[in-house]
Amino acid sequence: MGKTVGIFDSGLGGLTAAGEFEKLFPGKRYIYFGDTARVPYGTKSAETIRRYALQDSAFLCAHGASVVIAACGTVSANAIDALKASCPVPVIGVVEPAAEKAASVAASGRGRVVLLGTAATVKSGAYERAIAAIDPRIAVKSVACPMFVPLVENGYTSGYAAEFFANEYLGLLKSFGADAVILGCTHYPHLSGVIGSFFEGSVLVDSGREAAAAAARLISPEEAEDGEAEFYVSDSPESFKRLASVFLKRDAFEGVKCIDIEGY
Amino acid sequence: MGKTVGIFDSGLGGLTAAGEFEKLFPGKRYIYFGDTARVPYGTKSAETIRRYALQDSAFLCAHGASVVIAACGTVSANAIDALKASCPVPVIGVVEPAAEKAASVAASGRGRVVLLGTAATVKSGAYERAIAAIDPRIAVKSVACPMFVPLVENGYTSGYAAEFFANEYLGLLKSFGADAVILGCTHYPHLSGVIGSFFEGSVLVDSGREAAAAAARLISPEEAEDGEAEFYVSDSPESFKRLASVFLKRDAFEGVKCIDIEGY
Repeated sequence: MGKTVGIFDSGLGGLTAAGEFEKLFPGKRYIYFGDTARVPYGTKSAETIRRYALQDSAFLCAHGASVVIAACGTVSANAIDALKASCPVPVIGVVEPAAEKAASVAASGRGRVVLLGTAATVKSGAYERAIAAIDPRIAVKSVACPMFVPLVENGYTSGYAAEFFANEYLGLLKSFGADAVILGCTHYPHLSGVIGSFFEGSVLVDSGREAAAAAARLISPEEAEDGEAEFYVSDSPESFKRLASVFLKRDAFEGVKCIDIEGY
Repeated sequence: MGKTVGIFDSGLGGLTAAGEFEKLFPGKRYIYFGDTARVPYGTKSAETIRRYALQDSAFLCAHGASVVIAACGTVSANAIDALKASCPVPVIGVVEPAAEKAASVAASGRGRVVLLGTAATVKSGAYERAIAAIDPRIAVKSVACPMFVPLVENGYTSGYAAEFFANEYLGLLKSFGADAVILGCTHYPHLSGVIGSFFEGSVLVDSGREAAAAAARLISPEEAEDGEAEFYVSDSPESFKRLASVFLKRDAFEGVKCIDIEGY
């Protein structure tokens, strides 16, 4: 039996990573869990985020995951050590792969990186630490963008509202001269058009895509088990289906199952 | 020993009701629980909202509440029957008191009411049913305003962003000629300036205030126990303190306690 990748997120943002996984591992089985009953994590405390993340990964391990991707910037920034310590299988977060990519871009540029994330991600300082460990000369500016998740979830990915909040958060960063801009929350790639307009010439680093690529370095597509994606959520499957088609840009979400995550 | 009122909300919106309670019951003890580890409820399914609401009220009852106010539009619209069936003490939601107030205003006007609420509140149809039960001739237009909660929680209660989303949700209702506009989510009174500008001459019904007034009809201030407010949350007290000063417009939140709501 081949290996199965498990992917989880506080909600459905992690489906951007799942989409990247599908490109790298076509026809391969994976398990996705979205904690839709407790979403969002990005506004919550580090302790609560860790407690939830450990339950999420325990669910995936109990369902046969041989690698776990924490496809959530907030979890990766606040709970990766706890996850690695508690999981019996390898855990990949989004912070390390995205930090590596951004640092490598910055190393051949002006040495400047911008990190965009949730309040909890920015507060954690995880990206600054990860980038400093690679190259302490790189300057990192971090900005919490708390309105970006609700904007994406309500369909405001372009137009006036998206531009207004992008300007609120990014307006003063235009002159910073970032080589790389980390989209440190898996919702943010949906705003890449608007975000990119503030950072002409910068590389936008999609943290979910980098995490999927890191999984592909850990196990080869040949090792991965053949099969379909399986989707689990903690709230009703109905709300999942509405948003999932936005995130994964396809409709096949029959058989989405609701599970009791508090029991893990 | 006098009676103690318990107030709960998915998060901190219910503090608008707590503020009204403090005006009606000065110097009286009450217990507030905000489910900050699982907030928001308004984007979640009716089953999940019911499960959470029953735990929230069980906590308040276990801590001596003799009356429970569900100071959350989403809970009141989706779980009030379950709460009344399970609670050993009287339960007051925001829907019935706000519907009564709006119906009484509309009865002496053109018979038109607008309801603004979360997705889950609007989907429930609870306000339409409550108003139809009072006077079936009253026309009700309901609009979900999912960006209003993040706007309030991030401090955008006036200015361009608030006006943009108010226009998105309310622009077409300007000509409806509402007698009363129900602010069906306890966050929305913070946007009453912007909302009011779309409804000149309409009465804005603050659902949290109406619920507090309903509590005052159920128990008199003399019956209520003397003492201080006690605040409990399910996430870290730190996040509570940040938002609570916005909602209750005072700072005295020492001794806020974090509890494990999943155990109730």
